[in-house]
Amino acid sequence: MKKYAVGVDIGGTTVKLGLFDREGAVLDKWEIPTVKREQGRHILPDIAASIRDKTVSAGIDSSDILGVGVGAPGPVDSEGTVYRAVNLGWDVFNISQTLGSCLDLPVKAANDANVAAFGEMWQGGGKGHDNIVAVTLGTGVGGGIIVNGSILTGATGAGGEIGHIHIADDEPEACGCGNHGCLEQYASATGVVRLARRRLAQDQETSVLRSGELSAKVVWDAVKAGDEVAIQIAERFGDYLGKGLAAVAAVANPEVFVIGGGVSKAGTVLFDYIRPAFEKYAFHGCRGAEFALATLGNDAGIYGAAGLILNE
Amino acid sequence: MKKYAVGVDIGGTTVKLGLFDREGAVLDKWEIPTVKREQGRHILPDIAASIRDKTVSAGIDSSDILGVGVGAPGPVDSEGTVYRAVNLGWDVFNISQTLGSCLDLPVKAANDANVAAFGEMWQGGGKGHDNIVAVTLGTGVGGGIIVNGSILTGATGAGGEIGHIHIADDEPEACGCGNHGCLEQYASATGVVRLARRRLAQDQETSVLRSGELSAKVVWDAVKAGDEVAIQIAERFGDYLGKGLAAVAAVANPEVFVIGGGVSKAGTVLFDYIRPAFEKYAFHGCRGAEFALATLGNDAGIYGAAGLILNE
Repeated sequence: MKKYAVGVDIGGTTVKLGLFDREGAVLDKWEIPTVKREQGRHILPDIAASIRDKTVSAGIDSSDILGVGVGAPGPVDSEGTVYRAVNLGWDVFNISQTLGSCLDLPVKAANDANVAAFGEMWQGGGKGHDNIVAVTLGTGVGGGIIVNGSILTGATGAGGEIGHIHIADDEPEACGCGNHGCLEQYASATGVVRLARRRLAQDQETSVLRSGELSAKVVWDAVKAGDEVAIQIAERFGDYLGKGLAAVAAVANPEVFVIGGGVSKAGTVLFDYIRPAFEKYAFHGCRGAEFALATLGNDAGIYGAAGLILNE
Repeated sequence: MKKYAVGVDIGGTTVKLGLFDREGAVLDKWEIPTVKREQGRHILPDIAASIRDKTVSAGIDSSDILGVGVGAPGPVDSEGTVYRAVNLGWDVFNISQTLGSCLDLPVKAANDANVAAFGEMWQGGGKGHDNIVAVTLGTGVGGGIIVNGSILTGATGAGGEIGHIHIADDEPEACGCGNHGCLEQYASATGVVRLARRRLAQDQETSVLRSGELSAKVVWDAVKAGDEVAIQIAERFGDYLGKGLAAVAAVANPEVFVIGGGVSKAGTVLFDYIRPAFEKYAFHGCRGAEFALATLGNDAGIYGAAGLILNE
């Protein structure tokens, strides 16, 4: 009986890999460097070689492996075709076919944010639910939407790109995507710092945020310490994010929002600011959605990738 | 070989029914009144009796019917349980089981707007696509989202309630849902009239809209006739709707938006105003979505309901 699956999470610097048993427990985790030269053509062969080495050294026969799941940093359609992954130098090709023929194993591939969302549904903060929206508040704002236990990939692999929902009409600065007023401009780690800078520039009200370097962590620590200016910043953050997630809820109507990424290290205090705004803006039929913290951290990608194979 | 399916679209006044062949052609259409007394308990038995009468008179054996699809005006989960349909007097019960045991046939049920969206994907303006968003611009703004050929039902049957996406922060009037600034307040037939009233109140610029009664049709006729004030109203309408659909695209990333409902009778001129705003607000990865007109009109519901059975 086949017993194992491999989850692969391809990043711009390292590739994370995990060997999983059928029940979804991780048996081994390791990393290899992402070799990006020559348009990233070495990445998949390197992954194949690493999986072969690992299984040989663990005494696992390749015939005992159900398959390999892959998360890649770019739009990936439901057949496993990636449409340019600029961070890797990749153009358009089919990941599942290419890696599958290197390994002679079934391979399933999807976008990395969607794969991480799938991981959180399967073994993380969304466990027990099959309609979830995973929200990653990191350098940017990413999203992954799981509908009836499957990734919502969308027509061009851009399903769940919730960081680029237009949320404010009065934003003078441009988002990285070129638009103005994207959710990402307010709810990412850099967005929190922007909101803090703007608030501090308004007046001279005393705040611990006026000394030292600003970061999302510093702001949220000040919120927890009761700093009034920091609390006002958190309210702005919550208003923008609650409004954006209310729009998401009107489309996808999830059971739970699973919040991860660097900003989420602040913990459940985030929900004190997101939830009131969410409830204000959300349609009543969608207002019952719960909020939970992501629990898999940087391992969400390998869990979700293995889950593509194990949790069909 | 089983040859037929029945599509049922339950409205507040009449129930529409259609007999379809396997290929999705409608062989017969008819209506019965919706008898709402006694908490609507007669509705499903009436439907069952009508289906039996029709098949007997058409000489069709019940064993030749693959099943019956039903669209109901309320939230319906993926198992066919309706969670209150206030227009019918219905509380919570399972439509599929109840009607299925009356008829001794397989029954599938879903929300009426979602079923109509499914119909437009299967045989209407979205034919050939399996990721569509159907937008109904009628008295309100409804929506139905089809992902990989299946209805996005959501956790509580509120998937695709896109009329209640918050789109404006400065709206003094309340939406029917109780919130302020919902897409429905600007993009429905009544929303177009509101936008027109507001524009006309701003100044005294000459416009054909200043004489006679205002309606969405009157406004769009004036747009087509080149009335400058009407064109400004259409630009406002397009800005609100384009912004809302850009948010939908960032979540669901459809191939095509299929626009129906009374306002859509204006025709493709709508797209001249929606598309520029959509392209302005949409994330580049979702910007390629097409716009098409719904083609099934009031029959979308019976088509979609039959499609639940025939287009698995």
